[in-house]
Amino acid sequence: MTMRTDVEHFSCTLKDGIATVKLDRPDRKNPLTFDSYAELRDWFRDLVYADDVNAVVFASNGGNFSSGGDVHDIIGPLTKMSMKELLTFTRMTGDLVKAIVNCGKPVIAAVDGVCVGAGAIIAMCCDLRIATPAAKCAFLFTRVGLAGCDMGACAILPRIIGQGRAAELLYTGRSMTAEEGAAWGFYNKLVDAPALETEAHALAVRIASGPNFANMMTKTMLAQEWSMSIEQAIEAEAQAQAICMQTADFERAYTAFVSKEKPVFEGT
Amino acid sequence: MTMRTDVEHFSCTLKDGIATVKLDRPDRKNPLTFDSYAELRDWFRDLVYADDVNAVVFASNGGNFSSGGDVHDIIGPLTKMSMKELLTFTRMTGDLVKAIVNCGKPVIAAVDGVCVGAGAIIAMCCDLRIATPAAKCAFLFTRVGLAGCDMGACAILPRIIGQGRAAELLYTGRSMTAEEGAAWGFYNKLVDAPALETEAHALAVRIASGPNFANMMTKTMLAQEWSMSIEQAIEAEAQAQAICMQTADFERAYTAFVSKEKPVFEGT
Amino acid sequence: MTMRTDVEHFSCTLKDGIATVKLDRPDRKNPLTFDSYAELRDWFRDLVYADDVNAVVFASNGGNFSSGGDVHDIIGPLTKMSMKELLTFTRMTGDLVKAIVNCGKPVIAAVDGVCVGAGAIIAMCCDLRIATPAAKCAFLFTRVGLAGCDMGACAILPRIIGQGRAAELLYTGRSMTAEEGAAWGFYNKLVDAPALETEAHALAVRIASGPNFANMMTKTMLAQEWSMSIEQAIEAEAQAQAICMQTADFERAYTAFVSKEKPVFEGT
Repeated sequence: MTMRTDVEHFSCTLKDGIATVKLDRPDRKNPLTFDSYAELRDWFRDLVYADDVNAVVFASNGGNFSSGGDVHDIIGPLTKMSMKELLTFTRMTGDLVKAIVNCGKPVIAAVDGVCVGAGAIIAMCCDLRIATPAAKCAFLFTRVGLAGCDMGACAILPRIIGQGRAAELLYTGRSMTAEEGAAWGFYNKLVDAPALETEAHALAVRIASGPNFANMMTKTMLAQEWSMSIEQAIEAEAQAQAICMQTADFERAYTAFVSKEKPVFEGT
Repeated sequence: MTMRTDVEHFSCTLKDGIATVKLDRPDRKNPLTFDSYAELRDWFRDLVYADDVNAVVFASNGGNFSSGGDVHDIIGPLTKMSMKELLTFTRMTGDLVKAIVNCGKPVIAAVDGVCVGAGAIIAMCCDLRIATPAAKCAFLFTRVGLAGCDMGACAILPRIIGQGRAAELLYTGRSMTAEEGAAWGFYNKLVDAPALETEAHALAVRIASGPNFANMMTKTMLAQEWSMSIEQAIEAEAQAQAICMQTADFERAYTAFVSKEKPVFEGT
Repeated sequence: MTMRTDVEHFSCTLKDGIATVKLDRPDRKNPLTFDSYAELRDWFRDLVYADDVNAVVFASNGGNFSSGGDVHDIIGPLTKMSMKELLTFTRMTGDLVKAIVNCGKPVIAAVDGVCVGAGAIIAMCCDLRIATPAAKCAFLFTRVGLAGCDMGACAILPRIIGQGRAAELLYTGRSMTAEEGAAWGFYNKLVDAPALETEAHALAVRIASGPNFANMMTKTMLAQEWSMSIEQAIEAEAQAQAICMQTADFERAYTAFVSKEKPVFEGT
């Protein structure tokens, strides 16, 4: 399947097997809306079946990543909903996280400026994160009267930066500076703003030049082993890696090594 | 329910919705005794039902946090106990940790000086930790002939500071310096001794000025999702957050935002 | 049972209750072979029953830790195997990790120079890691066309250094520098090369001078509680510690304390 880029509620481009998506209301710091949530969820769900996308960059736009759920478009209506409607909404937002986690392609967040609320969650559930020194990431749910347990934050954030630091961010809603994010392992790297998207793209290209079937398996198992025992995880990896050993990419690597050449992977 | 402060075996004060508890034998660096274990366990269990406490500071006293289980009052008697009695004791100490984890209010440890053995465990199972440069935290069970697996340490400590660092502290029983604790994410912040309790109280006030029902949910889910899969965690948060969206505090935040005011939360 | 040191496919010495094992082809940076995998697995499995070994140092040799699975001896043959044979192989490698995790004795990796592929996995699954500034550790499976999910890496590495940093290393296969490893908690300490084995041995001696039955319990529970809930972990530790409280070592520590002496533990 080839991946569609004709989306309505966010921006999407595709080049050399790398899809770049961004929220697209830079004048308002790229809030999420009901529509963009739903379309992003559907797009990432379909990504599983795409053969022409090997990695994704979730980029910033106009100097900001995302201001999260729009106060007028989302928060206002939520205050008037029934429990059934509310659960439909929180499940939809959770489904976006699940779709990103299960899309089968490494996703790299490129974070500049404001990255808050659901925007912070999207950055958090990507595989890797590059940021600029201006990145301000806040899990600010408490500031809008809600709990820190939004879209998986209480499970995922502690695994990235540790339980104590995650608790502080979730209870206070305060901004994590770029320096803190780098020191704590939230960001893999800081780069200056003009280089942000280029660097994120280069990292995506580098990963996508590897064995993409195996990359999909790495992503799958990073999520799958989350709550397994050590013994279960080791058996699961024995099976997953045995599958990868039957790909032609594994033989390509061996042949290239023996010929003292650089392997060219084809993703099968 | 209003929370009692007339405790016998530790000190407890309550002001502006913040309870401050401390062990109260500063001349002996605040050891735990059978009595203080049991009374703390009961107090934190009752805290679940208290409406007049929104956060807790577990403070130091006389320059030290706690020297842990008293050698004469606790360790001596333990060496003479039957297995049934020993399990009764280890379950009681574990029940204190469970009670702190399940008390429904954010708990902030303010750590100065000696913080060892069961004292280190209490600091570890709080939500947040502020310390002075003089804080010396040691999981020293190995030095009294015991295992590092005390009151949940082998499960909780690795999630705060990482598996390798936790293993070192638990196998050697050595002190973690304040600087290490800050660099590793055990402490959220270091402050000078004279400012310690004030800073911890200010952080408690800040958190308690937020939506306290939602804070309780954050605490609940931080513990609850510990061993869930990612998918289970996301569904659990969809439900938890939908509940919070029906609180008046959520509407208060929205109304305040629209009016360009600061929300005043009421915890319902 | 006394532990054998007459191994064929790696080097093994035993002194003062500390076993030192190393891969033993320093001219080729100590690759693993089918034979050394199997013999290491069997040796660590037998270690559970050894009374004369209290800790293990997994050392470097000739300036390198290990270059991982040998390209000619292992990768070549794997490219020609049936799925049944492949799974037999990946399970054998996973069984080595399980054997190290379950051997009942603290294992300290002493990492110098090249530490890649299955070599990086061995370092990762040890309890503690000391390295030199020249240590280059790479989970380079992606570079040979395979997935990062090898021998438990997707489960274990994130718990040591965090999910985001682990994802980067597993997706890119890049080297983690010694400085990164120390900052991220992969290494417990960096020391200069000439001091490496001495320091690792000294740490092993220090730990082994503690209560070895209790150390075994610490190791057991660090693995066992991996996927438990907090409540389950606390109950499991209540039981495990109650067992340790019936050892003579616990009484030895108390008696020594009362006599103001240093306890001499005997491991029972």
